[in-house]
Amino acid sequence: MQDSGFLPRLLEALGPDVVTTDAQAIAPWLSDWRGIYRGDAQAVVRPRNTDEVARCLALCQQWRVPVVPRGGNTGLCGGATPDDRPANVVLSLDRMNAIRSVDTIANTMVAEAGCILGNLRRAAHDADRQLPLSLAAEDSCQIGGNLATNAGGVNVVRYGMARELVLGLEAVLPDGEVFHGLRTLRKDNTGYDLKQLLIGSEGTLGVITAVALRLLPRTDQRAVVLAAVESPQQALQLFSLLYSRCGARLQAFEFFTGPCLDLVLTHAEGVQAPFADRHPAYVLVELADTTDEAGLNSLLEATIGDALEQGLCLDAAVSASLSQVEAMWKLREEISEAQRADGPHLKHDISLPIESIPVFMERMAARLRQLDAAIRPFVFGHFGDGNLHYNLSRPAGAPQDWATTHGEAVTAEVLDEVMRHGGSISAEHGIGQLKREYFHRYKDPLELRLMVGIKRLLDPAGIMNPGKLL
Amino acid sequence: MQDSGFLPRLLEALGPDVVTTDAQAIAPWLSDWRGIYRGDAQAVVRPRNTDEVARCLALCQQWRVPVVPRGGNTGLCGGATPDDRPANVVLSLDRMNAIRSVDTIANTMVAEAGCILGNLRRAAHDADRQLPLSLAAEDSCQIGGNLATNAGGVNVVRYGMARELVLGLEAVLPDGEVFHGLRTLRKDNTGYDLKQLLIGSEGTLGVITAVALRLLPRTDQRAVVLAAVESPQQALQLFSLLYSRCGARLQAFEFFTGPCLDLVLTHAEGVQAPFADRHPAYVLVELADTTDEAGLNSLLEATIGDALEQGLCLDAAVSASLSQVEAMWKLREEISEAQRADGPHLKHDISLPIESIPVFMERMAARLRQLDAAIRPFVFGHFGDGNLHYNLSRPAGAPQDWATTHGEAVTAEVLDEVMRHGGSISAEHGIGQLKREYFHRYKDPLELRLMVGIKRLLDPAGIMNPGKLL
Repeated sequence: MQDSGFLPRLLEALGPDVVTTDAQAIAPWLSDWRGIYRGDAQAVVRPRNTDEVARCLALCQQWRVPVVPRGGNTGLCGGATPDDRPANVVLSLDRMNAIRSVDTIANTMVAEAGCILGNLRRAAHDADRQLPLSLAAEDSCQIGGNLATNAGGVNVVRYGMARELVLGLEAVLPDGEVFHGLRTLRKDNTGYDLKQLLIGSEGTLGVITAVALRLLPRTDQRAVVLAAVESPQQALQLFSLLYSRCGARLQAFEFFTGPCLDLVLTHAEGVQAPFADRHPAYVLVELADTTDEAGLNSLLEATIGDALEQGLCLDAAVSASLSQVEAMWKLREEISEAQRADGPHLKHDISLPIESIPVFMERMAARLRQLDAAIRPFVFGHFGDGNLHYNLSRPAGAPQDWATTHGEAVTAEVLDEVMRHGGSISAEHGIGQLKREYFHRYKDPLELRLMVGIKRLLDPAGIMNPGKLL
Repeated sequence: MQDSGFLPRLLEALGPDVVTTDAQAIAPWLSDWRGIYRGDAQAVVRPRNTDEVARCLALCQQWRVPVVPRGGNTGLCGGATPDDRPANVVLSLDRMNAIRSVDTIANTMVAEAGCILGNLRRAAHDADRQLPLSLAAEDSCQIGGNLATNAGGVNVVRYGMARELVLGLEAVLPDGEVFHGLRTLRKDNTGYDLKQLLIGSEGTLGVITAVALRLLPRTDQRAVVLAAVESPQQALQLFSLLYSRCGARLQAFEFFTGPCLDLVLTHAEGVQAPFADRHPAYVLVELADTTDEAGLNSLLEATIGDALEQGLCLDAAVSASLSQVEAMWKLREEISEAQRADGPHLKHDISLPIESIPVFMERMAARLRQLDAAIRPFVFGHFGDGNLHYNLSRPAGAPQDWATTHGEAVTAEVLDEVMRHGGSISAEHGIGQLKREYFHRYKDPLELRLMVGIKRLLDPAGIMNPGKLL
């Protein structure tokens, strides 16, 4: 603890309803949802408004107390879990969960940082608009965390990352000053775009307290195809054809290998093999549009027909109903859970220049064979964005703690190969604690230096989320 | 001049082909295209590659020589015109005009900063892709300048500002160090997104030397409607209907008042009144799609039919051919030129929360009437983005130099009203020299302070484009 005077002051400023110091009550806030990271803290603070966030940060800065902002705790890199310093304060935004406005003229939504993403998506839908940020954790993650980590998900190929949806944001800087950037303007060329620094900064520069988001027209008409492909190369050609032909309708282009499907068929309930034959890999394509369901279906059928004719896929099943759409998506969505059921594994959220995916896949497979031919790769992801979840499971027969004992060596191989192709060691999950060492190893020294300079500018006392990212 | 030793060193480093010091040869580089700003310089440097830019900047920093980066010189705020210091060096990117790659698998384009935007658009088109950044100056502006000013244009309602199209960029920082951020990755969550600082920084932080852009599917099918509306309020309702119904196809939603049309009909060649009656205002809507021209036309006709029925517009003409599309666009595009022909005037590139446009227009008109009832407003712009070009022409009978003598008082009124509605004093043109005073007056002090901090971090010697923006 920094000083015995801090906690009384914090309690005095915010009250016992906002500040929790009881060890038992704090315990659940000290680990991530996967149970991989665990830390310590002297208090959990759950402010009800921006002013309380500001008062908390001002005190923390004054007493040099480290602050760990926390959203829905769905991150995969330990970015919202405190480190082992007992002085930490966990600052949860969960009580700041009001939707301040949904505007269907301006097509904007203003929401507090603690709003659950799924609730915002539903609020937009109810207002005949769409918030297109969509990801597996959407019913527990919070929008503040989504922006702090620049979340991705399944619709990035059409709508971009979370960053692209942000019109403005409000944040509290480490000294307690409020950044009043909650503008809904579409155009505002007045100086450096400061909000961009906070987006993706993983809580190291300040605390996002509210956001102004763009809303898009709803795309209720959906058509999905599941296509079997013989290789990533073929998936690439199929992607190119669909991109040219279907234009803005292309809402998702997902990829998974045959072993991923096998795993889902083994572990998930209520799923069926989509084809009589097993295939090396699959892509799941979704087209979506505001209108004209018939046109959408016939466009997808015609395009896939041409793809089959041109030999750009081995087989294909086009959805004929919403339940088929959902059944196809379930095959993709159950992969993570099925892999969890299969046992501990190593996750690698990587991205590549999309045209490099085939050669990366080949070379990586060769490197893994050399390392240990029995490692079981389960590769899937947002292929249309060049984003693979290159996950590796324990070789059959290896000890249960394989991921722990071999993780570092294996991950080093994967990330080294990623960097050879000009890829990124973190596509959408961020750095947090998990990838910090690799981040420092691979990031350009000039960029690192600038980031450190920006960190010092915004957080001179260094209280914001220490041990994460930088 | 800072020191008599600088120029010889610069010439030695880059040669006389790159460095021009002859006063007569320099003269054309000292003013903006409208002839409003004029400055001084000791040399014009026209590097052929990034390394030459780096060597130039390193020397300038060493000798504390101010550098004014210059693209196509099409800006409207004097951002690329040197101030009156004879020590200035104008750094033109015009020779760095190679397209390094057009990739139709990754859907990216990598181009040097001096490439003319129109050339990039055509290169994308030829490769069956689209670079959707489109603006009046596209055949003379350069992509480096477009990014340095975060350019807007007519397709922002669909594709966003220039910023949204940037995947990566290369830049030279003031000390001559090269920022190697020319990545084409769609996803890269590894730390603060530093390129966002350079985008829109108007040459005050460094020199953008190359850019990696997203390419979109082509949207060759186009359908346009010109609708007469009785008020901005009606335009707003029409916008809302089209946004809901037409979704991603809505590519442009432009607005202009009756007096703008009158001006075009007076001054432009080969234009015709679109309707038998005169109307208070007009909107020009373009839908565009990759495919299905018939579907596009019938969607637009049905939507406009409903709008007429619901009383959301007074009259409407739907394009039946490409030449009609072009004729309708000409009415909008000729406004600036017609206003120039009409004489000196005050330009205000403002943006507003779109739902505030009607009340802003009303109140602003009242304020102008109070100021001088004979001022002639010509209001047009990218209504769908909340962006108005709120231009004001000399009252009939006022002296020719009215814009000069009355400009400051009138502009202060306009910008004051803009700020009352939470708008922006610069939607897409930037700050440059023109709006610097207002920028400092209206910008939040915290934001200004952070911007100054970032400026000091990247440009500690303060050599980059002094007198602009900050």
